[in-house]
Amino acid sequence: MSRRTRSRQEWEVCASTLARKTTNLIRRIVENLQVEPNPNKELIALSIGDPTTFGNLNPPEQVLQAVRDSIELNTSRGYAPSKGHYEARVAVAKYSAHQGNVHPDDVILSSGCSHAIEMVITALADCGQNVLIPRPGFSIYQTLAEGMGIVIKHYNLLPDEQWKVDLDDLESQIDDDTVAIVVINPSNPCGSVYDKDHLNEILDIASRNRVPIIADEIYEHFIFSGNKFTAISSLSQDVPVLTCGGLTKRFLVPGWRMGWVIIHDRNNILGKEIRQGLSNLSMKILGPNTLIQRALPAILEYTPQSFFDDVLLFIEDQAKLAFEELRHAPGLRPIMPQGAMYMMIEIKLSNFPEFSNEFEFIECMVSEQSVFCLPGTCFDYPNFMRIVLTIPEDKMREACQRIVLFCKEHVVFSEKRKDIEEDVSITTDVQVICDNDARVA
Amino acid sequence: MSRRTRSRQEWEVCASTLARKTTNLIRRIVENLQVEPNPNKELIALSIGDPTTFGNLNPPEQVLQAVRDSIELNTSRGYAPSKGHYEARVAVAKYSAHQGNVHPDDVILSSGCSHAIEMVITALADCGQNVLIPRPGFSIYQTLAEGMGIVIKHYNLLPDEQWKVDLDDLESQIDDDTVAIVVINPSNPCGSVYDKDHLNEILDIASRNRVPIIADEIYEHFIFSGNKFTAISSLSQDVPVLTCGGLTKRFLVPGWRMGWVIIHDRNNILGKEIRQGLSNLSMKILGPNTLIQRALPAILEYTPQSFFDDVLLFIEDQAKLAFEELRHAPGLRPIMPQGAMYMMIEIKLSNFPEFSNEFEFIECMVSEQSVFCLPGTCFDYPNFMRIVLTIPEDKMREACQRIVLFCKEHVVFSEKRKDIEEDVSITTDVQVICDNDARVA
Repeated sequence: MSRRTRSRQEWEVCASTLARKTTNLIRRIVENLQVEPNPNKELIALSIGDPTTFGNLNPPEQVLQAVRDSIELNTSRGYAPSKGHYEARVAVAKYSAHQGNVHPDDVILSSGCSHAIEMVITALADCGQNVLIPRPGFSIYQTLAEGMGIVIKHYNLLPDEQWKVDLDDLESQIDDDTVAIVVINPSNPCGSVYDKDHLNEILDIASRNRVPIIADEIYEHFIFSGNKFTAISSLSQDVPVLTCGGLTKRFLVPGWRMGWVIIHDRNNILGKEIRQGLSNLSMKILGPNTLIQRALPAILEYTPQSFFDDVLLFIEDQAKLAFEELRHAPGLRPIMPQGAMYMMIEIKLSNFPEFSNEFEFIECMVSEQSVFCLPGTCFDYPNFMRIVLTIPEDKMREACQRIVLFCKEHVVFSEKRKDIEEDVSITTDVQVICDNDARVA
Repeated sequence: MSRRTRSRQEWEVCASTLARKTTNLIRRIVENLQVEPNPNKELIALSIGDPTTFGNLNPPEQVLQAVRDSIELNTSRGYAPSKGHYEARVAVAKYSAHQGNVHPDDVILSSGCSHAIEMVITALADCGQNVLIPRPGFSIYQTLAEGMGIVIKHYNLLPDEQWKVDLDDLESQIDDDTVAIVVINPSNPCGSVYDKDHLNEILDIASRNRVPIIADEIYEHFIFSGNKFTAISSLSQDVPVLTCGGLTKRFLVPGWRMGWVIIHDRNNILGKEIRQGLSNLSMKILGPNTLIQRALPAILEYTPQSFFDDVLLFIEDQAKLAFEELRHAPGLRPIMPQGAMYMMIEIKLSNFPEFSNEFEFIECMVSEQSVFCLPGTCFDYPNFMRIVLTIPEDKMREACQRIVLFCKEHVVFSEKRKDIEEDVSITTDVQVICDNDARVA
């Protein structure tokens, strides 16, 4: 006997709220753009945040050898504990000693850093509660949160202060439903790197308001010369910090999906509940690929510093090249990054009256110059665009020259000329900081 | 200025409902058992559903070589599309042709079959809606659903009819909030394999009630001689079927976390919404490891049939061995499986008056005989226990002999003796079916 009141007459299968509301802002925006390149010019995509795309950046031999060795182990094929093999967690704890005292029990392996972020957000936030993320910020937070009914609120970064956090704005955004502040350092998309003093200012706000920090440090150590990376967890006296990291960017293997959460709980504030909650959530998909888990100790131990140095030197050179070229583009204001692998560029739309927003600017640039950059709106930051710094030098130079040409062809000077000159002076200040580095000289 | 009414005076960080309610039934039960083995006897764990645990079953050389080759490709390290690389989805579509007409666009790769199940359940069900799963059934469904507020309802399987579905019970469980019927075939934990007629009976109910089917076919083709595997999707005329599969069991690489969803939508009932919803959900963690994705075409194409045959012959031999030994265990009733890698065994507690439930039976058996089996309650099926059939033959024989000895030492015969004889006659019928196979002779 059926307990249904009546048979359904017609098929009607609806997607869940979660499925409907899980969206990728970047994809949604890009799919709606008219991005037909100029058929006479090769497309140069400055939009893809995957350092392996162009084939010029590859993981070191030691990383590949670690996986070759792992294949031959018959312990690299079975299920791991859902938090990850103990040996792999020991290796991550050792590798992460700069974050503070890390015990293997503080480490949970994840299927990439996105999965790490998903676990920490959904462990802390119920439907209706909110998480603060920086603006401009990385859109994966919306993708992971909004379908769950978790609210994403933004706090502003300051483009004229090397994308430091607007501390007043940050504190003003905290309310009774705020369960975490996300700090992305170094930053995607800004390329900013925060010093100890600034991190301490952020920690003060978190401490005063009793809000834990989610530290998105997938770009840890990814800093240009003259800067120093400090893990925010290493400074925290009381604020619990859940740090998300992984192999993705630094080891140039984003597709391998090896990430982790590290629990920093200096004053035992999180107690058992959050640890147990994260452990519970890790059981859903049973952890990342064990072939890479078994390779992880060797990967983390044997990758030579020279590999990291070489990659960073290349990216920094690209940043300088792009900055040097684009500061001469009329109507643009590039902001020199201090790390990561991106640069944000302001589009002074008042100098491009034919375009009513950055989308139109970007669409037209693709159709004329076959250069594509990501609109700032992808990071909730209109009138900017983001470029990646990992592409080969010749392509980068070519792309920048085409951007400059495009700007020259479309810019309109008027009484606003003075604004542009002011902008150049601001960016020159940044450049001076950059040029202080011995490696440039 | 803070919009909070007042500063929080004390730290108080609570885990979300999702994190608290996401539990692993098996782990929770096992952690609460007293499982101290007899120090004079080596522990034999018949509980672990990982065929690689004992080292006697290994993936074929072709699978390992495919991954060795993949490591050397510089296209095996970058991000894949979140639904998976196109070439890998082409390979899965081809490999899955027995399920009906499968197009690469119908395939979404996942981080293991658990992730596939998570995506299909959360794509279909909102909080408060329900999914029907078999009893006994695999507990991952609870783990994935209950934290989301999705209700898991059970329909009964019939132990005396080779674990066929109790069709009346199935239909009676459907209500207005039922969004899917899960069919696990071949079954974990039962080892049952359904023939076409029975699958059609299930489809009739789904069609009449307009309920889609989630086909958990991670054990597809995993059948013993004399049986035939039929994918339920291949029989469906109208019922949408979302099939979950992967490399896990058949290729003996559960840790590699390579699974997939295949969308079968014969009458275009799901339309764009469910496809889009699944695609949306796949963006959360950006798909499975690309090293394995790149190896997938070669894995699926070059693994020889002889490998599958050898593994299945071994498991079937273990099933026969265990069945033959345990049918002589007084007070037990093993039910011969037709596939997968498990056997369910009824514990006639009326013959073991010193134990008030199967937990006490199992705990005592560990402490005396150092043999551990999973309690049936792990599958919502008390008074049974599940053993795995993938352990080496000598260990299996030893374990069964110890179980028989344990039963002989604890069984109490009374007027119930007649029940036991009846049981043997039932299981003998099963054995006859099994012995019809030429490979046994």
